[in-house]
Amino acid sequence: MVASEQTLTAQQIDALSVTTIRTLSIDGVQQANSGHPGAPMGLAAVAYCLWQQFLRFDPADPIWPNRDRFVLSAGHASMLLYSLLHLAEVRGVNPEGEKLGEWAVSLDEIKRFRQLDSRTPGHPEYRWTAGVETTTGPLGQGVSTSVGIAIASKWLAEHFNRPGFELFNYNTWVICSDGDMMEGIASEAASLAGHLKLSNLCWIYDHNKITLDGPASASFSEDVGERFRAYGWNVLEVTDANDLDALKKAYQGFLATKDRPTFIVVHSHIGYGSPHKHDSNAAHGEPLGEEEVKLTKKAYGWPEDAKFLVPEEVRQNFREGIGKRGKDLREKWDALFGEYKKKYPELAAEWALMQERKLPQGWDKNLPVFPADAKGVATRDSSGKVLNALAQSVPWLLGGSADLATSNKTTLKFEGAGDFQAGSYAGRNLHFGVREHAMGAAVSGLALSKVRPYGATFFNFSDYMKGAIRLAGIMEIPAIYVFTHDSIGVGEDGPTHEPIEQLAALRAMPGILVLRPGDANEVVEAWKVVMQLQHEPAALVLTRQALPTLDRSKYAPAAGLAKGGYVLADAPGGIPDVILIGTGSEVSLCVNAYEQLQAEGIKARVVSMPSFELFEQQSEEYKKQVLPPDVPARVSVEMASIFGWARYTGLQGVNVGMRRFGASAPLKDLLKKFGFTTEGVVAAAKEAIKRAR
Amino acid sequence: MVASEQTLTAQQIDALSVTTIRTLSIDGVQQANSGHPGAPMGLAAVAYCLWQQFLRFDPADPIWPNRDRFVLSAGHASMLLYSLLHLAEVRGVNPEGEKLGEWAVSLDEIKRFRQLDSRTPGHPEYRWTAGVETTTGPLGQGVSTSVGIAIASKWLAEHFNRPGFELFNYNTWVICSDGDMMEGIASEAASLAGHLKLSNLCWIYDHNKITLDGPASASFSEDVGERFRAYGWNVLEVTDANDLDALKKAYQGFLATKDRPTFIVVHSHIGYGSPHKHDSNAAHGEPLGEEEVKLTKKAYGWPEDAKFLVPEEVRQNFREGIGKRGKDLREKWDALFGEYKKKYPELAAEWALMQERKLPQGWDKNLPVFPADAKGVATRDSSGKVLNALAQSVPWLLGGSADLATSNKTTLKFEGAGDFQAGSYAGRNLHFGVREHAMGAAVSGLALSKVRPYGATFFNFSDYMKGAIRLAGIMEIPAIYVFTHDSIGVGEDGPTHEPIEQLAALRAMPGILVLRPGDANEVVEAWKVVMQLQHEPAALVLTRQALPTLDRSKYAPAAGLAKGGYVLADAPGGIPDVILIGTGSEVSLCVNAYEQLQAEGIKARVVSMPSFELFEQQSEEYKKQVLPPDVPARVSVEMASIFGWARYTGLQGVNVGMRRFGASAPLKDLLKKFGFTTEGVVAAAKEAIKRAR
Repeated sequence: MVASEQTLTAQQIDALSVTTIRTLSIDGVQQANSGHPGAPMGLAAVAYCLWQQFLRFDPADPIWPNRDRFVLSAGHASMLLYSLLHLAEVRGVNPEGEKLGEWAVSLDEIKRFRQLDSRTPGHPEYRWTAGVETTTGPLGQGVSTSVGIAIASKWLAEHFNRPGFELFNYNTWVICSDGDMMEGIASEAASLAGHLKLSNLCWIYDHNKITLDGPASASFSEDVGERFRAYGWNVLEVTDANDLDALKKAYQGFLATKDRPTFIVVHSHIGYGSPHKHDSNAAHGEPLGEEEVKLTKKAYGWPEDAKFLVPEEVRQNFREGIGKRGKDLREKWDALFGEYKKKYPELAAEWALMQERKLPQGWDKNLPVFPADAKGVATRDSSGKVLNALAQSVPWLLGGSADLATSNKTTLKFEGAGDFQAGSYAGRNLHFGVREHAMGAAVSGLALSKVRPYGATFFNFSDYMKGAIRLAGIMEIPAIYVFTHDSIGVGEDGPTHEPIEQLAALRAMPGILVLRPGDANEVVEAWKVVMQLQHEPAALVLTRQALPTLDRSKYAPAAGLAKGGYVLADAPGGIPDVILIGTGSEVSLCVNAYEQLQAEGIKARVVSMPSFELFEQQSEEYKKQVLPPDVPARVSVEMASIFGWARYTGLQGVNVGMRRFGASAPLKDLLKKFGFTTEGVVAAAKEAIKRAR
Repeated sequence: MVASEQTLTAQQIDALSVTTIRTLSIDGVQQANSGHPGAPMGLAAVAYCLWQQFLRFDPADPIWPNRDRFVLSAGHASMLLYSLLHLAEVRGVNPEGEKLGEWAVSLDEIKRFRQLDSRTPGHPEYRWTAGVETTTGPLGQGVSTSVGIAIASKWLAEHFNRPGFELFNYNTWVICSDGDMMEGIASEAASLAGHLKLSNLCWIYDHNKITLDGPASASFSEDVGERFRAYGWNVLEVTDANDLDALKKAYQGFLATKDRPTFIVVHSHIGYGSPHKHDSNAAHGEPLGEEEVKLTKKAYGWPEDAKFLVPEEVRQNFREGIGKRGKDLREKWDALFGEYKKKYPELAAEWALMQERKLPQGWDKNLPVFPADAKGVATRDSSGKVLNALAQSVPWLLGGSADLATSNKTTLKFEGAGDFQAGSYAGRNLHFGVREHAMGAAVSGLALSKVRPYGATFFNFSDYMKGAIRLAGIMEIPAIYVFTHDSIGVGEDGPTHEPIEQLAALRAMPGILVLRPGDANEVVEAWKVVMQLQHEPAALVLTRQALPTLDRSKYAPAAGLAKGGYVLADAPGGIPDVILIGTGSEVSLCVNAYEQLQAEGIKARVVSMPSFELFEQQSEEYKKQVLPPDVPARVSVEMASIFGWARYTGLQGVNVGMRRFGASAPLKDLLKKFGFTTEGVVAAAKEAIKRAR
């Protein structure tokens, strides 16, 4: 297949390029002695045709805003992507988004596949390797995130495009696998994409009929194409993954379809061309082995001993294909954007802010202040008010709920907010349906597209979307989760709907901020913190039930929330006998106990601790001011698992919390049953004082 | 509609019964001032027809083994089920499974809907209310659990039935909602059920086109029936949810279909008959309101001021319907089982053990003992050996993996173990496909059916199945989860596949046992603990990488695992300077550090702590022996989030753990990068001693 330069036809160049993708992938995996060679081998032509002829992507500017997005949902096939990034000579980008000029993936980095700190980790990682649009690997996440990216593309078009200025019209192309198709999150996402008629979205399904455990037929026999037709997708089929003409026709078929997303079933062969591992799960998750590598290269007509060989013709071919095409497209867009800037300076300025994840001037000017109120308001309600104020100041703040907007209070109700639906893509209220996991991934896709998104559900069902939240944490993107109904405060709905361990689960996760504000004014402060995040997802954990709005002339200002934990009420004279630490709905309970203790002559301090993570970010000095080491009598009060609280209460502290699942009953009965009463906290305080003696 | 006794036709009795279900449901919700009246109103005829004419269920013996299972996946419609349980006069069963004779749901309990300790909690709870086959409420769980129940029915039939003794042939009927259909877990489960051709499974889809937030069309426009055809189901349609004849025909259509599961799309009206809330989301999640209740009753031809009215004709009707039919069926079965017992005493004895969740004599006799070995074996590998030994002694131990059996080492490899597939339902290796969440629910369904099931995946993807694990905890059923690849020990696959917070997440969850054994012999002991559980789900957390098998002649016996934490190696002379606490792969690291400290003259103790939960169950005395309060210098060593460890290491302890996501690299590089080295632990021990001074 490697012929002399003069004689190469276009077909031969194509074939050579495809083989180069295959052999680079094989060599990378073999060198690492770890990885997944089979999928890159099977998909090389599929990806080559897409990148070389269709993907609107400039290798010299991999963060050009209107680029097509390529998502490798089958993230285990990472060597396919790294080979493409290398061959297309994609330039690197540093985390601040300044272009670097170095290669995103040099040949050396391909040789360092899966090694410490290489640009070629086991699965593609966003913000680490330029050209990786989203982190993939956990099956189903890539496809589902792509739905958020496609939503963003539609929204950006409606928001920014003007007559003669079609700034945004990018498409999102996804390569996905049998494994993706089996995951429930992908079903949710596909159903949502079909509902929204996202015509800018194309999933290319690598139907190789092999999974890690063997033939997919051992567990998977549905008609996937039919399923997607049922979702309302345009379904195309390519019977031979190596047929570049057929692939081209299918991709054109996607581009010609303007009323719904496209699903292309591509029949492929895992480990294509390997004499002993073609169509075998042996090619899925382990290197071919030195001997088989040689045999495979021989079968390809490739020099069998050559390693990491990239023929110059192939480099040239990519330069003349995606390289030139991408550059032209990007330059035209840059020129267009230059004109746009002049004509629509305000919109252009808005876009610039979004790109840098900054907020507009005065974004926080209309935030409510809540007067002291013993009856008070549920934090979900105050959150709804704050969100509506913020969204009016930040036009690109948008989101929705997994069919619980009326309960989560996340609907944007002001004039012009609108619903995001097929036919009204400017709307800012997204209706995710009862699809928590896909919502989580879609929110990530939106964040990756530089709008500011939120997704909401009951806190208990954060479990359903945990996989997507985790990836947002790994990607360091500022997704916002609004979780209401945050405890046994749910009451009658009972244990199936009452979170217990969810706070601990999220607090234990790196890279995410968890905030459980204690009253309406802490809610305001929490949203202020969250809005300023640029690289961290955040979870707002809110009550269903009303909470008193604390009198801040009597107690410390709610602005203390920004430090994660702060002294809300203190003992006269300074050194308390006991410290009561509460979060969320239990802060006012602590205040009640504090008043009662005070009346009994016991000096107590109340610490409101809305965010462990923020508190841990403070100086040791500050932390010691709030929780003095010489006050060992400490009580935590939280209607959740006590797991994790010993960090602040120590080995001898008292934890007023949950040690079992909840129950179905009116809240007042549950509070009594589980000891969340003033008397209960007072007794705990006395016990803590006793233990500390 | 309430006519005098003499004149009632069969049709009138049916109508009266259906209306009674509706009004009881309405009254229960109104009295509680909380709940979901709309779905019971819409579904009353659907459920009535099923229970009265089809469900093979004896109200006098709601745990008759071959009863049809009824699953209300739309658990929020709980009043529908409670009304049926009441009207059918189902008898109560105590948690030990002894029949009680009292009503499962008396009229008083209906009046106490959603009150503390009533038999009628907000969502149906297994083991609390007789006749509730599985706890539902979180959408998608009921349908998915039903797949496990249907699998069990097929397996039990193959295992126990003999010519002339068709002991097991029960069907599983499920009522599910739009919300269920949107959840990814339901898609996974439906695909699996179609693949397995579970002809004993019927899902009745309440297609009322309304969700909590309003019209389902705001987020859901797929063709659900087509989707199920794509999964390989038999799809039927009933255009009027009140047409008893059409319902009957559809149910007969299910019974006549022997080669695949059946999906019945029933077009219904939420809040049926309510003048102002018919077809409105206002009927979904809140009481109708006193005035509307009256208007609705009037529209039904019901005395508008009557509350909790049950006409005697209706009681009589149920007695003569499901009551008589169920009793006949059960008595015939009892007689058959009596004969079976004589002819197949061993099989009958096996069944009796299963029913009581007991183990056969000698179940642990062939367990391996692993000799000391410095190179050792991965705990996933030793687990695979133990599992294979156990499964040969316990014929009803069965399970599988979410397409990772070859990695999880969960395949039963002995002669006759076989694969569970359509056409080979006696097989004990289940192939769940890449469907972790549905696997979790299916495992629960299997456990509810009294086989002993396990499900396996990478520990990281326990996230995907968290919702199902939680429900198993709430239900107190002994599901087994085998989670391998339990830390950054995963190596090259990188942060997307390396668990960090999963241990904390499961440890924070009530009611589940988490075990992370430290070597091959602790694996044996862990399985022994797990096998004897009757009411708790358990997660085995296992390594990908090899671990030394400790020399138990030198260190304490692995049997200490049963206490959750035990002194593995102690300082000569008793009182140590420092305690090193490790789990799983870090136990041998602690031992290495201990030896090193010893050599340096520092007295250390090593505590192996495979299970927080088991340790917490021990006496205070034992706990103090293991972790003496007068030894404050403590170090935890675990390749996971440090969250939760302060419980044992206190405010001043040192935690060697993870504070960020992992990375992609060969394990040896990661161990160094993240400080999991002998030197690292030795340094931590010295730091702990310093802090404790």
